[in-house]
Amino acid sequence: MRASILSIGDELVLGQTLDTNTQWIARQLAAVGCDIGEHRTVGDDQRSIEIAIQEISPRCNFLFISGGLGPTDDDLTRQAVAKVAGVNLQLSQEWLDKMIAFFAARKRPMVDRNRIQAMLPTGCTMLDNPNGTACGFSCSLPAADCTLFCMPGVPKEMKPMFTEHVLPAIRKASGGAVILQRTLHTFGAGESQVAEMLGDLMDRKRNPSVGTTVSNNVVSLRINARAPSPDEGENAMRQTIDACRDKLGELIYGTDDDSLASAVAKLLTNGAETTDSRSIVQTVTTAESCTGGLIAKYLTDIPGSSAYFKQGFIVYSNQAKTDRLGVSENIIHVHGAVSEPVVIAMAKHARRLTRSDYALAVSGIAGPDGGSAAKPVGTVCVGLAHLPNLRQPGFRNADREEEVFAVARTFNFPGDRDMVRDRAAKMALAMLRYRLLGVPMPF
Amino acid sequence: MRASILSIGDELVLGQTLDTNTQWIARQLAAVGCDIGEHRTVGDDQRSIEIAIQEISPRCNFLFISGGLGPTDDDLTRQAVAKVAGVNLQLSQEWLDKMIAFFAARKRPMVDRNRIQAMLPTGCTMLDNPNGTACGFSCSLPAADCTLFCMPGVPKEMKPMFTEHVLPAIRKASGGAVILQRTLHTFGAGESQVAEMLGDLMDRKRNPSVGTTVSNNVVSLRINARAPSPDEGENAMRQTIDACRDKLGELIYGTDDDSLASAVAKLLTNGAETTDSRSIVQTVTTAESCTGGLIAKYLTDIPGSSAYFKQGFIVYSNQAKTDRLGVSENIIHVHGAVSEPVVIAMAKHARRLTRSDYALAVSGIAGPDGGSAAKPVGTVCVGLAHLPNLRQPGFRNADREEEVFAVARTFNFPGDRDMVRDRAAKMALAMLRYRLLGVPMPF
Repeated sequence: MRASILSIGDELVLGQTLDTNTQWIARQLAAVGCDIGEHRTVGDDQRSIEIAIQEISPRCNFLFISGGLGPTDDDLTRQAVAKVAGVNLQLSQEWLDKMIAFFAARKRPMVDRNRIQAMLPTGCTMLDNPNGTACGFSCSLPAADCTLFCMPGVPKEMKPMFTEHVLPAIRKASGGAVILQRTLHTFGAGESQVAEMLGDLMDRKRNPSVGTTVSNNVVSLRINARAPSPDEGENAMRQTIDACRDKLGELIYGTDDDSLASAVAKLLTNGAETTDSRSIVQTVTTAESCTGGLIAKYLTDIPGSSAYFKQGFIVYSNQAKTDRLGVSENIIHVHGAVSEPVVIAMAKHARRLTRSDYALAVSGIAGPDGGSAAKPVGTVCVGLAHLPNLRQPGFRNADREEEVFAVARTFNFPGDRDMVRDRAAKMALAMLRYRLLGVPMPF
Repeated sequence: MRASILSIGDELVLGQTLDTNTQWIARQLAAVGCDIGEHRTVGDDQRSIEIAIQEISPRCNFLFISGGLGPTDDDLTRQAVAKVAGVNLQLSQEWLDKMIAFFAARKRPMVDRNRIQAMLPTGCTMLDNPNGTACGFSCSLPAADCTLFCMPGVPKEMKPMFTEHVLPAIRKASGGAVILQRTLHTFGAGESQVAEMLGDLMDRKRNPSVGTTVSNNVVSLRINARAPSPDEGENAMRQTIDACRDKLGELIYGTDDDSLASAVAKLLTNGAETTDSRSIVQTVTTAESCTGGLIAKYLTDIPGSSAYFKQGFIVYSNQAKTDRLGVSENIIHVHGAVSEPVVIAMAKHARRLTRSDYALAVSGIAGPDGGSAAKPVGTVCVGLAHLPNLRQPGFRNADREEEVFAVARTFNFPGDRDMVRDRAAKMALAMLRYRLLGVPMPF
């Protein structure tokens, strides 16, 4: 079963409005086992809509059209569909009556212009819209073995119509077949390196299929499993996920909506869903220079983060590193603010001052200015300090600095200021994650 | 001049990733007077890409393709273009050398797989990509009088390539007609309130037209001016912008790429483009609870922010507010951590400790948990402290707390955790902006 999606509107084609309907419809269709052929967007131009329908309909079983059903002169979907189907527009008394009731219920006058919204291609089936004045309709194009579903472009009208009147028909036609989708997230290796490690799991003809995408410095694996039933799909999906984990190991930090911060949060709280005062929760603090609060922002994105994150330092200037954390002026002078000794000192002092289990520290050159030959833009040092036994009974009040574990790494990140800062913040979280896992860092 | 846009990727066609490239490209094209014919999205399937190029290219002068230029087996744009153009792929020694240098500079191994990224259709022109391993290319399809521009799908790579290597060619071909687009940003009033204030400036038939959009708590005015020449367009644009400013006053904090943080930065540095040690720059510090570093993150998003932002505090727990800033336990106990006295104390102490001109403090309930009947989720207190005369000669070393100005406001923001945190951080910056302007806050 193959479906395509057509969006109509000048504001979409000119880029004034971001089309979010198409993505939403595509996800609904994939979930019931539809292949998606294409998305297309054209403006409020009848001929363009006709051409789109003519080109797309022979290639799919279902064509979903949104937009162009309003009452104005530039709403032309009805006319274009009628033209391609070779029929006229005909008054739907049923929809006219509903529109009259719609306006009456809102004590607003129905202007003449709205009548066009009850003119539908002859032979089509009206789709109810309780949330607006544009009904939808479905009709088949027998010449192309394709069924069209036309829906309004307003998301809060389109979505209920799709769910109530369109999806049941598609689901019935699919006979139980599904395409399940899962995403695994990795951080720390490049896309081509991940692909190399996955090897023939990325074979294009494989089912479930495995593909990679990159977004905000995270390389994700998208796994699609096509199966004749949900059970078989879940089974195949599980096996493929296991195979990916075999290849990539701890590079995979989470699935679907997980972030590096949520993965870290789970480890700090031992996966406790709720944190009461008795559960063993470890804490982390932050000492940030070039990331300017971004690590803390990521940590506190997570609801309930107050359990493991109490405070953090943003020490942007050298003076602040000394005044707030007690990093010695001499270390900064000798090694430079962007250096491993400095981030180690930042992490150690921040941990000690806040009596946290862990501290993360970052200092770097985010750009665009401030680079040098020895330390170009993108140079970032990340440090981590950890006092392993802080949670042991009786240890809380003794602070044995000699037992503190500390490590630092220097990176050279490509890209602009935003990318460097984002990658630096994520690298700090990734280093903490490996430490929490008790696994050597691959960086 | 007519252009169309083709996006390639399974993740796009299946709805797993929202395509934002197309909208961005469409806006750039409209700005130089291009009509946009259609947007299309197809999956990582060579035949589908070929069909799309074959169908679209006879209908437009320019076809912009993004995606499918990565190093993996499902990156098939190069092959599809070569097939349609009737040519082979040929090694670009120039790009191979650049890729080798790219990896060498990052001290990473270049895997064999990346070589495919230097294989380009014979006769095409390579488009440089300083931000990644996928070069772009342009080629003409003489049979269709259409020029193709192929670019990587990663926005951070596509956008600079488009701006530097593609747009100049399009602009030259446009012959003068323009659709100019400008955006004015407001913060602090709702969309319908802004629309009400704009009145008939929002008439749909007006040229230049004025429309509103909301994104990340910012209400923006989009102004489009169609004109036969850039001069006439600029003139009409200027008049419409002035008319909008007359209606909205200081609610408008900036245009186009401006952010609240960049507007604040300009005011703190007196608009100085470069900051040397002698220019008068005022400084700001932050004391953040529920925003967890987000205000500092926004301030340090701006290149050169070290001139006015030296350090900040993230004091998530009550203990941290007391330990780090010296907020009295009694104030917290009496008024609660989310209260105007507490944010005023946070701001005053943070300012004093860091000897800054200004301090911003936020404490609130971002949710989803932690709300109460008296202080529901979304309750946020924002405080500001300012020592007006810190920069006067001889004043630097005397710290007269009695001259500190302090103000706080309590808000109830709708939405989820992300929205509440974002709006709280922006409100703090907006309060600072009004203080810097010397204008009463409208909040």
